[in-house]
Amino acid sequence: MYSFRNDYSEGAHPRILNALMETNLVQDEGYGEDRYCGEAIKLLKERLGRNDVDIHFISGGTQTNMIAISAFLRPHEAAIAANTGHINVHETGAIEATGHKVIAVEVNDGKLKPENLKAILKTHSDEHMVKPKLVYISNSTEIGTIYHKQELEQLSAFCKENKLILFMDGARLGSALCSEENDLILADLPSLVDAFYIGGTKNGALLGEALVICQDALKEDFRYHLKQKGALLAKGRLLGIQFLELFRDDLYFELAGNANRTAHILSEGISRAGFKFLIHSPSNQIFPIFPNTLINALETKYFFSIWEKVDSEHSVIRLVTSWATKEDRVYEFLEDMRKAM
Amino acid sequence: MYSFRNDYSEGAHPRILNALMETNLVQDEGYGEDRYCGEAIKLLKERLGRNDVDIHFISGGTQTNMIAISAFLRPHEAAIAANTGHINVHETGAIEATGHKVIAVEVNDGKLKPENLKAILKTHSDEHMVKPKLVYISNSTEIGTIYHKQELEQLSAFCKENKLILFMDGARLGSALCSEENDLILADLPSLVDAFYIGGTKNGALLGEALVICQDALKEDFRYHLKQKGALLAKGRLLGIQFLELFRDDLYFELAGNANRTAHILSEGISRAGFKFLIHSPSNQIFPIFPNTLINALETKYFFSIWEKVDSEHSVIRLVTSWATKEDRVYEFLEDMRKAM
Amino acid sequence: MYSFRNDYSEGAHPRILNALMETNLVQDEGYGEDRYCGEAIKLLKERLGRNDVDIHFISGGTQTNMIAISAFLRPHEAAIAANTGHINVHETGAIEATGHKVIAVEVNDGKLKPENLKAILKTHSDEHMVKPKLVYISNSTEIGTIYHKQELEQLSAFCKENKLILFMDGARLGSALCSEENDLILADLPSLVDAFYIGGTKNGALLGEALVICQDALKEDFRYHLKQKGALLAKGRLLGIQFLELFRDDLYFELAGNANRTAHILSEGISRAGFKFLIHSPSNQIFPIFPNTLINALETKYFFSIWEKVDSEHSVIRLVTSWATKEDRVYEFLEDMRKAM
Amino acid sequence: MYSFRNDYSEGAHPRILNALMETNLVQDEGYGEDRYCGEAIKLLKERLGRNDVDIHFISGGTQTNMIAISAFLRPHEAAIAANTGHINVHETGAIEATGHKVIAVEVNDGKLKPENLKAILKTHSDEHMVKPKLVYISNSTEIGTIYHKQELEQLSAFCKENKLILFMDGARLGSALCSEENDLILADLPSLVDAFYIGGTKNGALLGEALVICQDALKEDFRYHLKQKGALLAKGRLLGIQFLELFRDDLYFELAGNANRTAHILSEGISRAGFKFLIHSPSNQIFPIFPNTLINALETKYFFSIWEKVDSEHSVIRLVTSWATKEDRVYEFLEDMRKAM
Repeated sequence: MYSFRNDYSEGAHPRILNALMETNLVQDEGYGEDRYCGEAIKLLKERLGRNDVDIHFISGGTQTNMIAISAFLRPHEAAIAANTGHINVHETGAIEATGHKVIAVEVNDGKLKPENLKAILKTHSDEHMVKPKLVYISNSTEIGTIYHKQELEQLSAFCKENKLILFMDGARLGSALCSEENDLILADLPSLVDAFYIGGTKNGALLGEALVICQDALKEDFRYHLKQKGALLAKGRLLGIQFLELFRDDLYFELAGNANRTAHILSEGISRAGFKFLIHSPSNQIFPIFPNTLINALETKYFFSIWEKVDSEHSVIRLVTSWATKEDRVYEFLEDMRKAM
Repeated sequence: MYSFRNDYSEGAHPRILNALMETNLVQDEGYGEDRYCGEAIKLLKERLGRNDVDIHFISGGTQTNMIAISAFLRPHEAAIAANTGHINVHETGAIEATGHKVIAVEVNDGKLKPENLKAILKTHSDEHMVKPKLVYISNSTEIGTIYHKQELEQLSAFCKENKLILFMDGARLGSALCSEENDLILADLPSLVDAFYIGGTKNGALLGEALVICQDALKEDFRYHLKQKGALLAKGRLLGIQFLELFRDDLYFELAGNANRTAHILSEGISRAGFKFLIHSPSNQIFPIFPNTLINALETKYFFSIWEKVDSEHSVIRLVTSWATKEDRVYEFLEDMRKAM
Repeated sequence: MYSFRNDYSEGAHPRILNALMETNLVQDEGYGEDRYCGEAIKLLKERLGRNDVDIHFISGGTQTNMIAISAFLRPHEAAIAANTGHINVHETGAIEATGHKVIAVEVNDGKLKPENLKAILKTHSDEHMVKPKLVYISNSTEIGTIYHKQELEQLSAFCKENKLILFMDGARLGSALCSEENDLILADLPSLVDAFYIGGTKNGALLGEALVICQDALKEDFRYHLKQKGALLAKGRLLGIQFLELFRDDLYFELAGNANRTAHILSEGISRAGFKFLIHSPSNQIFPIFPNTLINALETKYFFSIWEKVDSEHSVIRLVTSWATKEDRVYEFLEDMRKAM
Repeated sequence: MYSFRNDYSEGAHPRILNALMETNLVQDEGYGEDRYCGEAIKLLKERLGRNDVDIHFISGGTQTNMIAISAFLRPHEAAIAANTGHINVHETGAIEATGHKVIAVEVNDGKLKPENLKAILKTHSDEHMVKPKLVYISNSTEIGTIYHKQELEQLSAFCKENKLILFMDGARLGSALCSEENDLILADLPSLVDAFYIGGTKNGALLGEALVICQDALKEDFRYHLKQKGALLAKGRLLGIQFLELFRDDLYFELAGNANRTAHILSEGISRAGFKFLIHSPSNQIFPIFPNTLINALETKYFFSIWEKVDSEHSVIRLVTSWATKEDRVYEFLEDMRKAM
């Protein structure tokens, strides 16, 4: 069996394990105040071209979303998210558990636009309703789409005008930035969003996300929130060492490149075989529509998710590639698909 | 410089890193549903001699305390803790952030006794006050003391009679169980407490605590709480692999044994040199009372914490040893101490 | 100006003020443990034909919803509500502020049916999503519709089968039960729902809702939740006295009857004049569709809410009648409407 | 039986009921946006000599404390209170339920001083502990003592220097300000504290506290918090009408004066009879130490609380007087006491 179920089926890129090995017996401070975290933060600031941001390393995506959003909002304020947004569906109410409503907007492509926000602001007019305050977007989105620079600029301008906090979930930021359709670079982000994170877990790390807080007003006392929500690892070095390794050279982007390239081979092959997709997704998640018989045949050899039913005979499946996906396995999948058609 | 500041100054025991290496490219399920977590749970159940407990792996101590306590309590119920209890002082109000009061009891030795609980129950008599429901104890405690079997049995009996949940923070359980004054074994715990955890982070793991839920009523839907609080790591295998390695043979206890042995050498040496201690602590944390001049001298070569002021010329310091502490460094410390006296 | 804006524009029915006067200087216990609350509870139990329910008096609807729902749910559990449900839109995220997601279901008539619930249960299948646990319905609904006995029976059966808690917001229960299309009686409710409340504020009281908890498992320690959420009034007698007066004879139903009768006169008159409605609503809230010019004309003499835009020339307005609405004012409104057409 | 148990054993001062009668059928806006609330706010601002404060009417003390404190604090910030503080003991963890720790300080007289705060700030030095941010004081305190102007000025200066929010619980502010030992006036408060409330429930109203927010930074969006916590009464006029009546002339102070005067007669009489007190309390709560035999005798004719045990033969009782306490009943109590000695 080979798995296209997700981008966290393996451990970490070997270079990361090596880095852990090499530093293992060095004594250092706990709770992220060690030299490795310090250096990784310095390095990320260089990559971002900005020295005035605050960076914190956090174990996972749900934890990062929960801590950032609850730290940024006052009790009566709410987050706006696409209906497909991770915080809206797949975090077991983590945001609500910190006291905040998630206002979901129905969209087709997983992306929010200014007109979506405008409509929400219009209907939330007084103190009998929550106050929409934070705009949560994912890049790439949960259905594989990505934000283009102009889209993000428009969203950013709207948020600034309306005093909304713009927060980008970057669990799959690597894949977004390395997409061949992408026109954003990492260093664009600090001036476009108020906070975002650079996902490590889904791009070759054992665990870890780097939260970048760009807006000054959101920075104060942030480590208190990390500690209160159980995110300040005693051996915080574990996160610093990994990000240091991922960004020491271009490893982070190479890994995302592999994920995108193998996804692209898959989608090209599937497309050539005559199948359609739920949506055009230029990143490491693709959503082909297959006959159920084909799905059944492929399930004998591959792991993947059934995304949704299309009609009585067809379903959408989700195929996810990663830093670890092997090209030959991708070609083998396409071959198996053609045989089973 | 050498550090006696804490038991998480290094990475992980080398065998743990090796185990991560060896399994690194195996594809498996996410979120703790992989084979390694499965095997580690099976192994721990064997070590506990109990098949009817639920076990979950969680990244750190504060996170474990917060998730367990908030999952176990209804909104109006409170936790009782010693004034020194980690949840009372050093978790940035994590328990309160989930809505629950921590009722602190002043004690001298870090341990709760039935009479402490009786006094709390007596003064919390109606709905104008919180309802004390969970008893939080640490073993070893935050000041290095340990619970003897009889003490724990008495506490357990009192809790059962009064329908209180008894929860043991085992961040340093290894050190407690390997103390030469200890008369408890791991397999005693499931019948004495309702839930407890086996600390990995402070005993040789990169990160990870194994929460053991013994009481049936507390087990239901626990994974929802893990996810909601951001604790379900995508690569949950990272925790399973480590516990598998720690308990495959007696590594866990060997590591705790090293911590205790080196602490014992320290306390013996300090005692022989004529110094007293804040409290008798038969585990891996010791609290000698030193002249400030001696402290200043030692600080040029060693890291450790100043615990509290005794008088204008003396202070208590905390020395912590670990799985990684080297015996020769301990002897060197004693030598340096004698020279500086 | 005359107001059809809501059913809480006046003070209380004069008999209620008289009852407050008559009992004013009698000394009694605080926090709802007085004789008036005791008698009112006894009386309501008689009216419900059930001695095994628990009854608590609470100041208002949002407070009742928030306290009941947060007391009934564990942290990972969620409430299901119609998109129009009061907890979903008009309570400033009060439910989320206690940690629970509200799962909104799009419906046209403000009412939930078993198939809505079935769909929600199907998509909430594991611990990555909240666990739907409580079904929140309003009777009458926020758009004036009511539940028929068979509908409620079906919903109740579905909830029992699926271990869902069925909770009825009865802020306008009087109007629902006195609707000429209604076939439910107050005494039907305890066997059909797990908890509900009898609204006083919108039916002639100064303030006050009577929460009836029918299911044993939901009763324990409820007064703790009242106190913790700030709902235990020092002079709780204020609520008991009012419910005693409302249910001593049929005053509660007479007042609701006036609201319904005057609403009916309005809707008949509007209908005869050729206007349509957003929805058929047989209770004290009606939603006629008027030309904007007519609306503007009526606004010079009447207060009411603009509910929503229909097209560039028409809007839905909401007219609400109450225990205090005067028949002659209703006829005058109809007359004014006809003149302005 | 006559009750000295508390200051909320009766309904409201008759003038308040009259005011409710007179305005009863006037139609007005809901949720505190009516003319009565408007006028009451205007009037209170005049009495305070300040037009730049925000005033909100809230049903009760616990609700006011909970809403204000949770609105003022960020998630990691804590409130400091005296061990006797209402929020620390008698609000069922209401503050913690909104996510904030209450740091209790042991004091003898129910009052906080700058040195208490200094000690707390010193021990809360980093992100592993909550950040002390709000200082909660009560005037009069829960044990009947009052703050003198100089004490409050010192506290205020310390809070300003250390960026702490100073919040005064004024559930019994009337009694404090009318104490013969008092040297503060209502108009002093806005410049000394950041927010406080003027208690109505315990001084002749049916229910109601007037929260005064003095510091600009704390004012924003406050009505959202009121709504979210269930405190925005549909018939908010109920609160406005009462405060209008209490402050239209000096009724509020007259009522507090009666409470203090009758308490003073009691304490003088008790003192003359040779008994001592737990503490000197110049307001409407007194705490004499009586032989248990005397207590038993008095309990046949009077309601009051047993406060605490002194020794096997003596206990402290609490006697509370109010706006409604009758002088002849006070003399009768003293007579009965003397007879039973």
